[in-house]
Amino acid sequence: MPLTEDQAAEIAALRAQVAETRRATVPALEAMLYNAMPVLDHGFVRVVDYMGDDAAVVQSARVSYGRGTRKVSEDAGLIRYLMRHRHSTPFEMCEIKFHVKLPIFVARQWIRHRTANVNEYSARYSILDREFYIPAPENLAAQSSANRQGRGDVLVGDEAARVLDLLRGDAEQTYAHYAEMLNEDGADPTRQGLARELARMNLTLNTYTQWYWKIDLHNLLHFLSLRIDAHAQYEIRVYAEAMLESVKAWVPLCWEAFRDYRLGAVTFSGPMLTAVKRMLAGDAVTQPNSGMSKRDWAEFMTALGRAA
Amino acid sequence: MPLTEDQAAEIAALRAQVAETRRATVPALEAMLYNAMPVLDHGFVRVVDYMGDDAAVVQSARVSYGRGTRKVSEDAGLIRYLMRHRHSTPFEMCEIKFHVKLPIFVARQWIRHRTANVNEYSARYSILDREFYIPAPENLAAQSSANRQGRGDVLVGDEAARVLDLLRGDAEQTYAHYAEMLNEDGADPTRQGLARELARMNLTLNTYTQWYWKIDLHNLLHFLSLRIDAHAQYEIRVYAEAMLESVKAWVPLCWEAFRDYRLGAVTFSGPMLTAVKRMLAGDAVTQPNSGMSKRDWAEFMTALGRAA
Amino acid sequence: MPLTEDQAAEIAALRAQVAETRRATVPALEAMLYNAMPVLDHGFVRVVDYMGDDAAVVQSARVSYGRGTRKVSEDAGLIRYLMRHRHSTPFEMCEIKFHVKLPIFVARQWIRHRTANVNEYSARYSILDREFYIPAPENLAAQSSANRQGRGDVLVGDEAARVLDLLRGDAEQTYAHYAEMLNEDGADPTRQGLARELARMNLTLNTYTQWYWKIDLHNLLHFLSLRIDAHAQYEIRVYAEAMLESVKAWVPLCWEAFRDYRLGAVTFSGPMLTAVKRMLAGDAVTQPNSGMSKRDWAEFMTALGRAA
Amino acid sequence: MPLTEDQAAEIAALRAQVAETRRATVPALEAMLYNAMPVLDHGFVRVVDYMGDDAAVVQSARVSYGRGTRKVSEDAGLIRYLMRHRHSTPFEMCEIKFHVKLPIFVARQWIRHRTANVNEYSARYSILDREFYIPAPENLAAQSSANRQGRGDVLVGDEAARVLDLLRGDAEQTYAHYAEMLNEDGADPTRQGLARELARMNLTLNTYTQWYWKIDLHNLLHFLSLRIDAHAQYEIRVYAEAMLESVKAWVPLCWEAFRDYRLGAVTFSGPMLTAVKRMLAGDAVTQPNSGMSKRDWAEFMTALGRAA
Repeated sequence: MPLTEDQAAEIAALRAQVAETRRATVPALEAMLYNAMPVLDHGFVRVVDYMGDDAAVVQSARVSYGRGTRKVSEDAGLIRYLMRHRHSTPFEMCEIKFHVKLPIFVARQWIRHRTANVNEYSARYSILDREFYIPAPENLAAQSSANRQGRGDVLVGDEAARVLDLLRGDAEQTYAHYAEMLNEDGADPTRQGLARELARMNLTLNTYTQWYWKIDLHNLLHFLSLRIDAHAQYEIRVYAEAMLESVKAWVPLCWEAFRDYRLGAVTFSGPMLTAVKRMLAGDAVTQPNSGMSKRDWAEFMTALGRAA
Repeated sequence: MPLTEDQAAEIAALRAQVAETRRATVPALEAMLYNAMPVLDHGFVRVVDYMGDDAAVVQSARVSYGRGTRKVSEDAGLIRYLMRHRHSTPFEMCEIKFHVKLPIFVARQWIRHRTANVNEYSARYSILDREFYIPAPENLAAQSSANRQGRGDVLVGDEAARVLDLLRGDAEQTYAHYAEMLNEDGADPTRQGLARELARMNLTLNTYTQWYWKIDLHNLLHFLSLRIDAHAQYEIRVYAEAMLESVKAWVPLCWEAFRDYRLGAVTFSGPMLTAVKRMLAGDAVTQPNSGMSKRDWAEFMTALGRAA
Repeated sequence: MPLTEDQAAEIAALRAQVAETRRATVPALEAMLYNAMPVLDHGFVRVVDYMGDDAAVVQSARVSYGRGTRKVSEDAGLIRYLMRHRHSTPFEMCEIKFHVKLPIFVARQWIRHRTANVNEYSARYSILDREFYIPAPENLAAQSSANRQGRGDVLVGDEAARVLDLLRGDAEQTYAHYAEMLNEDGADPTRQGLARELARMNLTLNTYTQWYWKIDLHNLLHFLSLRIDAHAQYEIRVYAEAMLESVKAWVPLCWEAFRDYRLGAVTFSGPMLTAVKRMLAGDAVTQPNSGMSKRDWAEFMTALGRAA
Repeated sequence: MPLTEDQAAEIAALRAQVAETRRATVPALEAMLYNAMPVLDHGFVRVVDYMGDDAAVVQSARVSYGRGTRKVSEDAGLIRYLMRHRHSTPFEMCEIKFHVKLPIFVARQWIRHRTANVNEYSARYSILDREFYIPAPENLAAQSSANRQGRGDVLVGDEAARVLDLLRGDAEQTYAHYAEMLNEDGADPTRQGLARELARMNLTLNTYTQWYWKIDLHNLLHFLSLRIDAHAQYEIRVYAEAMLESVKAWVPLCWEAFRDYRLGAVTFSGPMLTAVKRMLAGDAVTQPNSGMSKRDWAEFMTALGRAA
């Protein structure tokens, strides 16, 4: 359970406050506002604010004085056109802010997306909670033999048990030593306590941190398209999936366009497109006569749902 | 008068719609929402959306679960501390969106601030209105003789009259030819009409354009500090001044901190600081014995409110 | 001819200076360095500096201590892999700087690419040259009737002649009035001269400006992919084509990967991919039974090289 | 000693290769190129490429065809003017690329500077070296009692010994378990080995990582001004100091301007400036009659070199 009673009470108090606004408002997202969606064993994602809606995309694309909307069908058509042709600026006109709790090794991947605003909990200034990520047994994967950055089978038996013991034991021990070195509140009056900015270096990378993360819709969709992908590490993918639920509630027309033109889309290189045309014309196209490398050919076959 | 009846009606319709929200809401800014503040002869600035408030800065700086606020005095103190020490990320957690109508030569300066989202009215796709900026007589300044990018005295008499005639005449003529080349709706059935993306090149740089412009509070304050400055060109400064009114309504605590630590602040170089200390110790400091160049010395004297 | 004798002499002097360096150096790009490639009637593009080469992409992808290169074939394979899977950061490790002379209406499109460093010639501070873009007769296109931001047939006869007269006449007249209002060097001793920052507003949008523009390879390729496209306006496309020649000389392996996986590539949406699979399986797929809109279907047919 | 023999040999091989170039070249920086400057116990900074020099700043500010330089004194004057008035774009025209080896907790601070290009060694793909940062005894500081993110006295005696034992012991143990879980090369043939992307989570935050980091001069100076500051954490400050040595060699005129107008500079708020003027006029200014808060007054006294 990721939230303390105090935290849950703070969230409940916020949710109880309702004000009137002239701004674009999305009831489906209001219903989710502030609530924490659990992710991994101690993490969460929660929406803490948003700006704009589907109509705001249309409004800015048309640089209009009012809502910019005409019929729903016309708005949907414009949004699909903008998504298909990779017009990015109208989608930048919507903004969303999340509060996220996540393991440090996930935060290190995530922060590489530079086009966002971030305020992270400071372990220079404050003390981190005693919480660390331990994979569920079904996520304890072996190294893939085919892909150096991929996962293979799930570990079982003694090996799995030993890995879980090591992860849990080391996290607990390093945290206990972190607390000892800090000597907070002069627990041991004979010691001064190590500076927080130094003591934190003893923590393991599965320790949880948290941050406020604010991003526009265009860059969020880019983040999601990369991190929802099957090649993304499981531990960040689950955060992307949770955030995607917010997107569906917030901007349903943008979500449908994103699903059709980005998530479900596939890009064929010049040689791949040539091969498709030849195949449709009845040619027997093979890797050797396609001009593609073996690796490209394998990806091409996969995209067409065929055995390589 | 910058708005047509249709546009005014669209704005009025928007202002009449009120919804309930759980988001941070600022009544003083709600009161201004969508209304156009006139700038120059045909331009305007209007706030079309916003996210966050003073408390959102505090909330993200503390990475808190609720509003993050304690006493108003503590919040104000934290905001002043963040501003004084140039902490930028908490101020990035507030966002505002403007609709702006402005002459193209002003837009060309403005767009150099890259950390914003922009959707401009497309003269490739649409036809620009017949509106151009003509300076009011009191803003018709001569070239400064002291500063190559500054203004001198106001022009008067025949020279002023001639300049206004030329500006007005050329803008009207080039616009008339633009319309003729476009031949919109087949006004002259014997002609095809020049492509819009080409015809626009005949317009002068004082033609008005418009855009949606969205930016976070940190970058907005940076923009305002540069463009409200006495060295900024008058025609962009008036837009900055109009936007500053929104900031005062929106985030009054941030505004006060900005006023004290940024707008009214002065930066002294190492040699300037040394000179201040010597002067306070009773030394007779002069430009030659200060180690400063004449230019630095002049700026130093100006900062101290003394004659150079 | 875009260069004066003085400018040509400055460039020749630069080209004559040779120094020794331990940095990555590309002879094919050195041969082009500083030379102006003419674009449009008075514009140019010239490379004024560069950092890195194909091997620098490999080196940073491997975070290696030396050049990072192994066999050429392995390097090419890695670069193709990075391009295919849209890894962007290794391509950001190469940087190039251009000096560009271009019409203002082109500069206004170009500047929308925010991830670049720009220093533009200041018409607030200096006086612009008397040079403006007049399209060659074969580029004087009518408005497209099918696409609001496209071109149709080339204008001919009286209409073409009239358009060229208007463009040329207005540019010459507004420039003459600009010069008159400036009254540079007290040409007319009875007048003070209008401030440069104001006088410039009388110029038309086809007046030439110039800038230094610096960008990393990843963002340059993104710019080129958008601006080399057949839907880009001709007047910016020719600049992209000139810059592409630099890319071919500079990073030939990256260029080949870009050509195959980006320029020649096509993205199929989920429904398009489904249709391809059905067609390959022998189904008679039509727009109505494809689940695609008419617009999508038309784009799909075009991608497959079939009549819609 | 941070480099293996192989790494040193790779660097020596690179340094032995010399080519001719027409580009701006800086002999003083060439002399440092590729060499690793040691930082902390196992880290380093080394320059691996650069673009531009002092003259390139001048050249782009003037948008000139040649080097843009006139007399050295004029160039220095222009650079000082640009620095004093915070013109940022000409300094963006120089670029530098570093290879840095640094502890992960330092990397986490560093990466918050978003305006840079980064390629980090991937612990998803590769295996991290067995190297971690252990502070030298003189850097083992107690928590400051005055400043929640500062350091107090150096720890001594038993407390210091215990802290060093804990840091060293935990880092060695967690690394040993990391290696055991990886089971690289099937060291234990009965186990599959945990996926690299998971095993890395067991490492402590003082483990060393490395990256290529490329940035323009403007943003580098901003980074340095923040990280060389006395309030920056010691473990990142030493990296900033090492990089500053490159800047001095690379762009000596920019360095001098940066030293005078940024590093040695102090910003006085409006109320502080008023107080200075009153003090120079002979007023007895005190905190209560200054209108400043106690905190502001203390900072003001410190800036003037007086006891608060």
